[in-house]
Formats: sequence, structure tokens, C-alpha cells
Amino acid sequence: MIEDKNQTRTSISELGEFGLIEHLTEHFEINQKSTIKGIGDDAAVLEFKSKQIVVTTDLMVEHVHFDLSYMPLKHLGYKAIMVNLSDVYAMNANATQVTVSIAISNRFPLEALEKLYAGIETAAKAYDVDVIGGDTTSSTTGLIISITAIGEVNKNDVVYRSGAKPNDLLVVTGDLGGAYMGLQILEREKEVFKVNPNNQPDLDPYAYIVERQLKPEARKDIVKLLKDLKVKPTSMIDVSDGLSSEIIHLCKQSNVGAALYENKIPLDPQVISTCEEFNIDSTTIALNGGEDYELLMTISQDDFLKIKGNPNLTVIGYMTEKENGMHLITRGETLIPLIAKGWNPLKDQ
Amino acid sequence: MIEDKNQTRTSISELGEFGLIEHLTEHFEINQKSTIKGIGDDAAVLEFKSKQIVVTTDLMVEHVHFDLSYMPLKHLGYKAIMVNLSDVYAMNANATQVTVSIAISNRFPLEALEKLYAGIETAAKAYDVDVIGGDTTSSTTGLIISITAIGEVNKNDVVYRSGAKPNDLLVVTGDLGGAYMGLQILEREKEVFKVNPNNQPDLDPYAYIVERQLKPEARKDIVKLLKDLKVKPTSMIDVSDGLSSEIIHLCKQSNVGAALYENKIPLDPQVISTCEEFNIDSTTIALNGGEDYELLMTISQDDFLKIKGNPNLTVIGYMTEKENGMHLITRGETLIPLIAKGWNPLKDQ
Repeated sequence: MIEDKNQTRTSISELGEFGLIEHLTEHFEINQKSTIKGIGDDAAVLEFKSKQIVVTTDLMVEHVHFDLSYMPLKHLGYKAIMVNLSDVYAMNANATQVTVSIAISNRFPLEALEKLYAGIETAAKAYDVDVIGGDTTSSTTGLIISITAIGEVNKNDVVYRSGAKPNDLLVVTGDLGGAYMGLQILEREKEVFKVNPNNQPDLDPYAYIVERQLKPEARKDIVKLLKDLKVKPTSMIDVSDGLSSEIIHLCKQSNVGAALYENKIPLDPQVISTCEEFNIDSTTIALNGGEDYELLMTISQDDFLKIKGNPNLTVIGYMTEKENGMHLITRGETLIPLIAKGWNPLKDQ
Repeated sequence: MIEDKNQTRTSISELGEFGLIEHLTEHFEINQKSTIKGIGDDAAVLEFKSKQIVVTTDLMVEHVHFDLSYMPLKHLGYKAIMVNLSDVYAMNANATQVTVSIAISNRFPLEALEKLYAGIETAAKAYDVDVIGGDTTSSTTGLIISITAIGEVNKNDVVYRSGAKPNDLLVVTGDLGGAYMGLQILEREKEVFKVNPNNQPDLDPYAYIVERQLKPEARKDIVKLLKDLKVKPTSMIDVSDGLSSEIIHLCKQSNVGAALYENKIPLDPQVISTCEEFNIDSTTIALNGGEDYELLMTISQDDFLKIKGNPNLTVIGYMTEKENGMHLITRGETLIPLIAKGWNPLKDQ
């Protein structure tokens, strides 16, 4: 939240559209065998041979999906890639390529875009995906980022949302609610900063949850882990809108019900303590807070021994017949119907 | 430019993100064999077997790329698809799928989005592409449309920008400058409308060029024609930014020069007469006006007899050694260096 007033500002219009894309992507490497031709023609050319491919796309709009007053541009670039790769991994696929389109108002100098693309490049390298195309144009107001991610998968390995069966185990990776609570901390510090711009926030006690918000990691490792464990989930989805909403998606598309145990939901101690500080219920946050980018899956009970004790995977419930409905079973053993309260980007504008 | 004050307005927030996508795409058909799974999971699943695939993406921003005061939403949806398919055809590929993401402010009621999607559906049907995914979110100001198009092509049929050789013929499809002059007419009528809202514009004399602006058609037919004629261009690009800029792209990426004959540039009589009316040079418009979405290609002289006399293809020049540069040869036989004055969306904001 500290601005360097002496930074260099190069106007993007000086470079023009082609010069700009070239400048921003010249260091980007092509590493995937399936990339035949990347940036530089009317379209990229790819070849996947016998594999199936998965395609997913996401649009992020300033003031709706991110706030540049506490989201550094490099982190934003990184996160924009993660949001899309997470959807690829949720298909049990290996992410291979992305296209990145941005629209920017001229309040952004070239140096700001370089930071954004540095984050994109870092993410692409870390997750071994090629940036194969994109479009750079202007916007009348804020920053808009549109990413399409492509992945490859063997035909028999694809996991849809629709394969869950009654008695399958409901399993989630990592822990939940961190990204949402990190956002609460950042929003609070922004208000403090508005009142006293010289105040230096101490974010150390919140380091984990702030990082969950600003620099989430997509669970590429889980796709590999499942392969190593020889477990093919019966259904899978990424947790972008909150656990409750994702469970409902799996149930509706698989035509089953679900029982979720409150006491099994994995929470980081920092989420619990921050929820206490804000006087909000941590289960509510895990159920409805978004942006954790963990994977939620169902697996056959036959596979239980393969995943038992794995620190990356937590069994949080099981699937039921559709007629049984979708419920949270509280610590007090009360049944509460699950409802989708996840973030609705169309609601608040 | 006449608004129906009694139209129904349903707020989009009532439906939510998932409800909205479902509502807008429920009539969309899946026809391509390569589409295994369309909308409704974390990602779409596609399978192309031995074919290569091409991927291209484009971002359109209100007030930058389109003006809703004279661009009907249905036309806009249609055009947004065309812009992307044009890039697929420029690779000599067959377009198969698109993803469509939109961000909208709440000044758009559901009925407006339905019109936009009606145009998208019409285009998808007419060009036989499946809409396989997308994202719907809110924007703080205008309408943003981000489309990614995918196509398939036999490995040996892909045409890049980089294969032109000296002495190859420079060939363009259709005619040029129409979309730009159509825009001039619409801009003029908008100004007239501002002064006198009851004035009914007579666009009949400009029907062709206005249609070139509002409802361009991507040249799918040319990909088929080239196949039928057994002609594989040595290089190809779509004419989106003006002939001059596209010739320069081919030359730079192929490492050759070019000679373009002014008297060979195909112009519709309506372009010529409207240029006269506006007192501007029609060659300048063909060279620098954008959005014609024709295809510009180079073909070997050996193929000349195959294309000779075809009404869809006009030979407008030939490629030279790089050292000879890139020139327009005027009617008066003067050589003028080609320069890229094409539209720069980053320049004027």
C-alpha cells in the first residue's frame, strides 16, 4: 500500500498493440510438446494426438474480482493463471497452455503491465504451461483479464462433476476459508490506511491467510498424487465459490445427496483465530467463503485405504441417495440443509 | 436508434451466475463430433484425434470496439463470433468450438443479454461451431465480450503467416474498405440523431457497407474453396486491421518484400461512391480501414491457373525479395512505401 512516487512511467500507446504483446511476452518460453506454434500468428497451433483436451475460461474485472489497492499486480497475474488452472486440474487433467487477454485504461503505464506479466510468467513457469496467445486492448476504465486454459488428459482419466454415487466418500484437499479471511484482513487494513496513510500494517500474524488470498496455488500436485495412489475420483470440482455451493453442484449433477460433517471440515488455526477475532463462525466461512482453489471430490469406498492418512486429503462426509437431501451434520449432530450462498458476482453491482 | 420504452426489464441478478449461463445457453446445440462435453463442468472436454488444433482469442470492450447506440446487441453477438472465426480460417482450419465470456453492468437487463446471445447462437449455427463454455460476471461500467475460438486442421494443411516466398502472388478475398466506410455512415447518422431524434435515417443507399460493419461474415467458404481448388496458400492472415498492416505482417514474418498494385485492389462501388461523398481517397481506406475480415494470402505462381477468374479471389500484387521493400504501385506507377496505419486500440483512450 506504499506507492513509489518516482517510478518510471512509459505510456503503453507508444508501443502499439503488437509491440506491446511482443514486449510483454518475449521472455516467455514454450516447453510443452503439444505446442506447435505459440504467439505470433492468427492463432496458436496445438497437437494432442490421442489425448482429450479440456478448455476453461475466466474473466476477471477490476473492482469486481480484485482491488489493486492491496493486490500487487504481480500477484494478480499469478492468481489469474491459478484460477484457470484450478478448473483444469478439477477435470483430473494436466494443464498445458493458456491464452491471456487484457484490456487496460491508460492510467496503467507499461511498467505496471510488466509487473502483471511477470506474475503470469512466474505462474506459467511454476506450473509448466505455455502462454500461447492473447489480445491486448484498451478499456475505458479499469483492468480486465480474460484467460483461457487448456489441458490434456487420457480419455479414461477425465473426471466430471456427474459421477458421484451414494456411499462415495466426500473428500477435500488442503484447508478452507483462508482466502476469505485473508480478504477480510486486507479490507480492514485498507480502511485503516485510508484514515492514516502512514500506518504500517502488521500482517505477520495473518501471513498464511493473506497469502491464500493474494497468491493461491492451484492443486496440480493433487492430480499427480491421485495418479500415484491409483485413485480415480468418481466426481470432482474446484472450490472457488465455497464448499457448500460446490457440494450442491456435485449432488445436482450426480443426482445424489450428501452428508457433510462439520467437525471434519479442515480449517487452519489462523482461520479459526481470525474468525474469533472477527466474531464470525468458522464453519460458515468454510461453507460460503470463496477462492480457496482446493479440489473437492468423491471417491469410492473401495479406495479409502489408498487415501487414508494422506495429509493432503480429508474425508469430510459421504454421498447419499438423492432423497436424503444435502445436509451439514453439526458438532451437536443437528442436520442443517446446505444452501448455496457462494459469491454471486452479478448481485452487488 | 429508436428505443422501445415499454420493453420488459428483468434484472440479471435475480438469476445469479449459474442460472444466467444456463438460461442463456439452454437452446444451444452441440453438433461437432470433437465436443465430448460442453457447458456445465469445470471445463469443456474435446477430442481431435490426429488433427492439430488452432486456438485464438479476442477481447471486445464497449466504447472501444463497439458503440451500442448504433450496434444492435444481436449483431454484436454475431460479429464477436465472426471476429474470432476469421482468425481460425486464416490458419486454413475449420472452426469447431467457441467459449464466450461476458462482463456486464446492471444497466443491461436480461432481455438485452438474450439478444446478445441470440446473435451468438445465430452465428454458431450458421458456421457450425459449438459454444462449449464461458463465464458471466459483472462489470462496473460497460459490456465486455471475450471469445476464444478453436478449430481443427490436418497437420499438412496449416497455413502460417511465415511461408511466403518471392514471386508468390498476393491474393485477397472479397472487397476492402466497406466496414470502415459503413462505420463512417453510422457515426454520421448518430450525430444527426443527436441533433434531431425524430430523424429517420435512410441507410438504403449504404446497405452493403453498413452490413459490412454491423454483420461481417468470416470467410469459412474460402477454406473450403481452397481445398476444392487444391490450392494451399504459402501464407495467410485475416484482414482485420487494414490491408497495409496485414501485408507488412506477412512480409516481416516471411522475410520477403511485396509489390501491391493500387488498380488491383477490389473495391465495391458503394465504397467508391461513399468515399467520394466523404471526399476521401478509397485506396487509403482499403489500405488502412479495418474490420473487413477478408483473407489475405500468398500463393505459388504454379497455382495461378487454379484461381484465375475465380470471383472470390483477386490477385493484387506479388512478393519480392526482402531488399526490394514493401510498396504500393499507384495508378500513376509511383512506388509508395507501405506503412501500418491500422487501428491501434491503445492509442486513442
